[in-house]
Amino acid sequence: MAHEIERLGEARIQSPILLGTQSGDLLADYTPDDARVVADVELSKIMASLKRGETPSSFEEAGPRQNIYFDAKKLKVGIVTCGGLCPGLNNIIRGLVMTLHHGYGVSGIYGFKYGFAGLNPKAGHPLMELTPESVRNIHTQGGTMLGTSRGPQPPEVMVDTLEQCNVRLLFAVGGDGTFRGALALHEEIKKRGLKVGIVAIPKTIDNDIPLIDKTFGFDTAVRLAKDAIMAAYYEAQSADRGIGLVKLMGRDSGFIAASATLSARVVNLVLIPELPFTFEGENGLFDYLQGRFKARKSTVIVVAEGAGQDLVSGTGQKDKSGNAKLVDIGSFLKEQITSHFSRTLDVSLKYIDPSYIIRSAPADSNDAIFCGHLAQAAAHAGMSGRTGMAVGSSHGRWTHLPLTELVGNRKQLDPEGPLWLSVLESTGQPFYLTNEPPKNLERLSFVPSSHL
Amino acid sequence: MAHEIERLGEARIQSPILLGTQSGDLLADYTPDDARVVADVELSKIMASLKRGETPSSFEEAGPRQNIYFDAKKLKVGIVTCGGLCPGLNNIIRGLVMTLHHGYGVSGIYGFKYGFAGLNPKAGHPLMELTPESVRNIHTQGGTMLGTSRGPQPPEVMVDTLEQCNVRLLFAVGGDGTFRGALALHEEIKKRGLKVGIVAIPKTIDNDIPLIDKTFGFDTAVRLAKDAIMAAYYEAQSADRGIGLVKLMGRDSGFIAASATLSARVVNLVLIPELPFTFEGENGLFDYLQGRFKARKSTVIVVAEGAGQDLVSGTGQKDKSGNAKLVDIGSFLKEQITSHFSRTLDVSLKYIDPSYIIRSAPADSNDAIFCGHLAQAAAHAGMSGRTGMAVGSSHGRWTHLPLTELVGNRKQLDPEGPLWLSVLESTGQPFYLTNEPPKNLERLSFVPSSHL
Amino acid sequence: MAHEIERLGEARIQSPILLGTQSGDLLADYTPDDARVVADVELSKIMASLKRGETPSSFEEAGPRQNIYFDAKKLKVGIVTCGGLCPGLNNIIRGLVMTLHHGYGVSGIYGFKYGFAGLNPKAGHPLMELTPESVRNIHTQGGTMLGTSRGPQPPEVMVDTLEQCNVRLLFAVGGDGTFRGALALHEEIKKRGLKVGIVAIPKTIDNDIPLIDKTFGFDTAVRLAKDAIMAAYYEAQSADRGIGLVKLMGRDSGFIAASATLSARVVNLVLIPELPFTFEGENGLFDYLQGRFKARKSTVIVVAEGAGQDLVSGTGQKDKSGNAKLVDIGSFLKEQITSHFSRTLDVSLKYIDPSYIIRSAPADSNDAIFCGHLAQAAAHAGMSGRTGMAVGSSHGRWTHLPLTELVGNRKQLDPEGPLWLSVLESTGQPFYLTNEPPKNLERLSFVPSSHL
Amino acid sequence: MAHEIERLGEARIQSPILLGTQSGDLLADYTPDDARVVADVELSKIMASLKRGETPSSFEEAGPRQNIYFDAKKLKVGIVTCGGLCPGLNNIIRGLVMTLHHGYGVSGIYGFKYGFAGLNPKAGHPLMELTPESVRNIHTQGGTMLGTSRGPQPPEVMVDTLEQCNVRLLFAVGGDGTFRGALALHEEIKKRGLKVGIVAIPKTIDNDIPLIDKTFGFDTAVRLAKDAIMAAYYEAQSADRGIGLVKLMGRDSGFIAASATLSARVVNLVLIPELPFTFEGENGLFDYLQGRFKARKSTVIVVAEGAGQDLVSGTGQKDKSGNAKLVDIGSFLKEQITSHFSRTLDVSLKYIDPSYIIRSAPADSNDAIFCGHLAQAAAHAGMSGRTGMAVGSSHGRWTHLPLTELVGNRKQLDPEGPLWLSVLESTGQPFYLTNEPPKNLERLSFVPSSHL
Repeated sequence: MAHEIERLGEARIQSPILLGTQSGDLLADYTPDDARVVADVELSKIMASLKRGETPSSFEEAGPRQNIYFDAKKLKVGIVTCGGLCPGLNNIIRGLVMTLHHGYGVSGIYGFKYGFAGLNPKAGHPLMELTPESVRNIHTQGGTMLGTSRGPQPPEVMVDTLEQCNVRLLFAVGGDGTFRGALALHEEIKKRGLKVGIVAIPKTIDNDIPLIDKTFGFDTAVRLAKDAIMAAYYEAQSADRGIGLVKLMGRDSGFIAASATLSARVVNLVLIPELPFTFEGENGLFDYLQGRFKARKSTVIVVAEGAGQDLVSGTGQKDKSGNAKLVDIGSFLKEQITSHFSRTLDVSLKYIDPSYIIRSAPADSNDAIFCGHLAQAAAHAGMSGRTGMAVGSSHGRWTHLPLTELVGNRKQLDPEGPLWLSVLESTGQPFYLTNEPPKNLERLSFVPSSHL
Repeated sequence: MAHEIERLGEARIQSPILLGTQSGDLLADYTPDDARVVADVELSKIMASLKRGETPSSFEEAGPRQNIYFDAKKLKVGIVTCGGLCPGLNNIIRGLVMTLHHGYGVSGIYGFKYGFAGLNPKAGHPLMELTPESVRNIHTQGGTMLGTSRGPQPPEVMVDTLEQCNVRLLFAVGGDGTFRGALALHEEIKKRGLKVGIVAIPKTIDNDIPLIDKTFGFDTAVRLAKDAIMAAYYEAQSADRGIGLVKLMGRDSGFIAASATLSARVVNLVLIPELPFTFEGENGLFDYLQGRFKARKSTVIVVAEGAGQDLVSGTGQKDKSGNAKLVDIGSFLKEQITSHFSRTLDVSLKYIDPSYIIRSAPADSNDAIFCGHLAQAAAHAGMSGRTGMAVGSSHGRWTHLPLTELVGNRKQLDPEGPLWLSVLESTGQPFYLTNEPPKNLERLSFVPSSHL
Repeated sequence: MAHEIERLGEARIQSPILLGTQSGDLLADYTPDDARVVADVELSKIMASLKRGETPSSFEEAGPRQNIYFDAKKLKVGIVTCGGLCPGLNNIIRGLVMTLHHGYGVSGIYGFKYGFAGLNPKAGHPLMELTPESVRNIHTQGGTMLGTSRGPQPPEVMVDTLEQCNVRLLFAVGGDGTFRGALALHEEIKKRGLKVGIVAIPKTIDNDIPLIDKTFGFDTAVRLAKDAIMAAYYEAQSADRGIGLVKLMGRDSGFIAASATLSARVVNLVLIPELPFTFEGENGLFDYLQGRFKARKSTVIVVAEGAGQDLVSGTGQKDKSGNAKLVDIGSFLKEQITSHFSRTLDVSLKYIDPSYIIRSAPADSNDAIFCGHLAQAAAHAGMSGRTGMAVGSSHGRWTHLPLTELVGNRKQLDPEGPLWLSVLESTGQPFYLTNEPPKNLERLSFVPSSHL
Repeated sequence: MAHEIERLGEARIQSPILLGTQSGDLLADYTPDDARVVADVELSKIMASLKRGETPSSFEEAGPRQNIYFDAKKLKVGIVTCGGLCPGLNNIIRGLVMTLHHGYGVSGIYGFKYGFAGLNPKAGHPLMELTPESVRNIHTQGGTMLGTSRGPQPPEVMVDTLEQCNVRLLFAVGGDGTFRGALALHEEIKKRGLKVGIVAIPKTIDNDIPLIDKTFGFDTAVRLAKDAIMAAYYEAQSADRGIGLVKLMGRDSGFIAASATLSARVVNLVLIPELPFTFEGENGLFDYLQGRFKARKSTVIVVAEGAGQDLVSGTGQKDKSGNAKLVDIGSFLKEQITSHFSRTLDVSLKYIDPSYIIRSAPADSNDAIFCGHLAQAAAHAGMSGRTGMAVGSSHGRWTHLPLTELVGNRKQLDPEGPLWLSVLESTGQPFYLTNEPPKNLERLSFVPSSHL
């Protein structure tokens, strides 16, 4: 599978970025158009596809091309940030502006304000001119200097706006909803026969985008989630039969919950969307807690927001991004546990929801570097005429990914893989919190008894 | 190339860690013995080796095996930390103890104190018993609870000690010197026909170990290096013709210097061991600074400790680890610049050397997670009977690497690759600070003029 | 007013701490028993009391006495921590143990677990022996190693416990409820004719203890509250008509809300218990917001938990500490504002409640120093035979305060003083959010229009 | 002593800041011109001065006056920052601009660049206009946006500049050298019969200004110094006979060294300018270390830069600020200790000098609040016509202090007072490191043996 990237046309212009083309001259090189990295690093999978007579699946490598599509002097570029906040948004904006301006000499760079709404004249948000001077220090601040909002806008209206502004290259920063919007834009642009590039930069604090290693802001989110967990731990430890409960982001995937647990090393139980659990019964949550309080004074629980949604009658509503509105599992757990034990055992539960504190934080050191690379990759891709695509990191390399393959897919944590195994080992929690665990399990958790 | 890992013998014991073996049961699985990841992810390299009729080069994947070599009940394990400090050492120790104790039920875990010296009875350091209780909170502290030292000890003496202590599995945490020591131990053990496992966990703050993605502590080091750079930036900005100069770790490789620069985004010039530079001449450092002060009030310079060593007559000495003693390039630069400009221009230079502050820091969130995985991988490898090897992360997977391939090799930053390109773009610094740059360069830096 | 401190009896034992008694020998000196600091530093108040023929009101100074009451060799000491968490609890415990052990040579130091409940045999909590070794690193952790709980216990039962344990000196760390409990203990002890010292160390995250400069943990709380405010600010700034709402601690006093506002410098409106406000009407909260959104895109509001309690029908309940259960003003404000504007204006409100994250944090640098001094002052006071008292900082000096004067009194922020003036200046908020402001106000806020 | 403050003339203009004048209306009040706080809070000193028939010494309270001297509409204001960096400089600048602009309506606010040099046309630094917009976010950055330099300029030249710019009120932020410069300016202004106000804001990272509680930036400096100490501690602990040595700021006073020691609680020996020490002899530093290494594996030493200057032949030079150039006591100690023990004992010494990292840091939360108050106090004082003065905090109140009383005086740590006593207790270090300690000392340190 070649994960083909669409192009607006032939790249005939010599890049104003002057780089090398040969090895050994100590001069940084252009990325050749045929540079590709394999999609899967497992040797067995690669050999299997070869056996089937197929070239192993691979992604195009990102980087500056020797020949580009757009004439930087005449080009007007737009940037839009969509959806919930995530650490690093300002770094992305800054990186795009710096590369486009200093590298390519693009002088017309504009921000559309408050998400896709900024592309709809009805919202009445004026364009914001972006210059190296205006973005220089924004990466030290959280949030997005362009503002953001949730929800789609009619693609026809948005393309009208692009045409009226004469913007020929749009960078859209966002998650699954943004991919859908970007793809709709891309379709409408092609329908009209326009030559306008659409390049997405994946943003989701849940780290659930397929095909890529991780999303920007994730490391920062995990560090802050860990801080919230430590708070829950200290509260739990300081009370007689104390329970510290932390709700973390993760609509469909437990990546933040799992990683923050591994960072903090004080969690006893992690609940994630990928694994069902029950309250009642021999192997349910209540019995687990009852058992723990026989031996321990405190318990720290981390729950991802998408966990246990089957336990409650859903809201049936959707948010503006089109995602199902989740029940607040944190408050629900708090009520269930408190109410259950009120009859039998005097427990003290403290509930912490750090979501907005995490989402709005400036990017940590690691994410700042990551965002810088992503923005540069996106700028180079856009200038080369690539479109209908996103940039990402795959196996540590910067790559191009077709939007069509990202839309509607979520990466989930593999409960049988090494990350979750590490969580099981760190927490000592049961493999299953359900009534019907596999019969052949001789012991129910990685460790004989919880070690925390 | 198969990067073969040696084994002490057949693994015949069912692991006390009870995991799954099949997909779909939501139970974490053992890692099969034949799981491998490719050594190179570039499609062209893989296809080239296939054309040559070779299987693509690959590494064995790390993880818990269903059958192991050692009987945990009878096993005594040793841990030793060697060389300079690095964030995460205590996390590694903690992770080894936790996995060996809780996962495998090993109860005899001992630390050798102060590096390889702890394996030499002459030094007189008593063994230190390690338990889950004694290591529980050490990861919140910097340094290593076992102590460390530089320099080798006679392998015969060390193997005598292992025999006397009845330690059959030794984990050695350290860098190139430690690899050499571990390999010497391994050879001596084989010479004596003993069945003692030697597993290394790579530690180098410079991130210069070949074959692996990065070493633990690197992200923390970069974050703290960035803080030192910001200090230099504020000092430089607050003075008329201010120069902020920061010396960072990096004996042979500019990884910390480059990454911290990308994290801070305020550096104007990075000097690394991989790229030569001169002081005098049309394209030398002095002329660069002279030129900058025509347009700018301040300049921030980052220098890796191994840069510019050809400019000074070396010390000719070696440190206890056997590394050539470097000239202090930071102080040397400070003197050269101050003395040069004292004749012409009133500059104010502030020099910052944050080395010990960085080396001694506790691991950040990201490194804490990384160390946890490494320690688990090492424990699983050791219990399975693997020996003469190290664990690492390759393309995001945990892998086994033969010590013979690590010893004496250093990973260096590719001046023609994307990381350095990103530095050139961020700093706007000249491609070359030498007198004879390539003739065909139409412009001398990535950006028309420095943008900071 | 002399703020007299009770004593158990004459101090006849030479202190094992050997200090100087004369100036000029560079040897740290004992604090003389007659050292006092004035209770009020305003010159006019001091002169007024002199005119009335009174000596100015003053407090006894804390510090090591040359002669002490207890024989350290035979003494058993108890420590108890009560009420909600507050940064620095572990520093206080550590400081007490270190001074009593190293300074005086007390070897029998015991912790009562989980607040006053630990002094009631019914709760079944065993005593915890405290040694320099066991407390060495606890100050790096949040919470309290002794555990805590809310609520009183019968003084008779607690004194029985002290007698049975032979504890002759009790240190109680807590707030107003703890003062009441300590005073009840003190009365019961006197009733029985016992010679048992009771020394309190004031703890309240609200900083509302009278007679003293500030309470420990306050600086840390303000720093963390500021971080939460910055999160609210970034959320508000990133939305079209965004409102960031932060609820902070402060049952009766707006000190944290005011100080965190001055630290962050991004708040537009602070609501505190000392100043009433209304929703409706020409000068109410709704009109203020309506007005702001004409000129501004975002608003940051900080509300102390005790503010606006008159606007809602109270719960009528009390918590275990005997405090009236407050209505959750943060959620209430969120609902009121969202519901009001849903009819007219599309606002986006993000609500942050960082309480547990703040309360459970380890003490910052400044609080660590402060706690060290407090603990030493308390240890010296207790050893000297002082009882029925608390230690504190008054005008920067360490002082002794009678418990009778602390119980039932709350320090409040003076809306006419310099702290609130500084808030008005920083926020540009209206002097009054009520329907009947004074008629003679020519302009309604410190600044002509909000400057943020 | 009345610590009289000079005024430019009668304050006849109603302040544009409209505040209250009576208690009970919940409206923030003006500070009356006769509000004063006592200079000394010890009751005995106050009573002694009364016995002598004197009114107790007191300071004028700072705050907004109802009547002011300058017509804000016509006023031009200057700000200058001088000397070494200190956390909070930008907060001071921001606070001055915000209060002058928003509170009083001053629109002509200008910064003189790079210290007093900015007032000398020879240096050629253009004036920098300061507005709320230009200073809004500067407090998140370290250093000073105005730049700074050391050294005086001719007062005649500087007054010429003020006249030419028509600046009638100058705020000078700096330490003792700046006070001298400001006083020289003030004298020259009076000589010329001009009505130009000079208001200083004390800045010294050493916290050695007399009459005031503390200087801004001190808490931040202590926190960062503590971080450096922790690094030294981890280095020392990780080596066999490891010594961690940290040099901290403190030319004449050990305040930072003492406070950072109390914050970290891991230091074994603090050397300060106020207390002499010797290397050799029975009670010298070498013997102390020799003794420690009999029982301990590591030692942490903190030395203030001004300590032990008598042990080395001074440089005889002065820096641009006129201060004697100190010998680098840190490097000197490192050499002396290393060289001494090279003959007898294998010690491993790591030396850390964090000075620039500390000086250039942005202000912490607490200092941000402190700076805000100081800047407001200074703005109010200047607008009221006060001159030849500085603002400060005395016993927790904001006060006015005559420059004549600050110049040439240094506050020192009292080796017989509670701060140093606390250090002795925390470190367990000997009272004296000299050959002739007092004969009557029965034991040589606060604690029987070091407890760390």
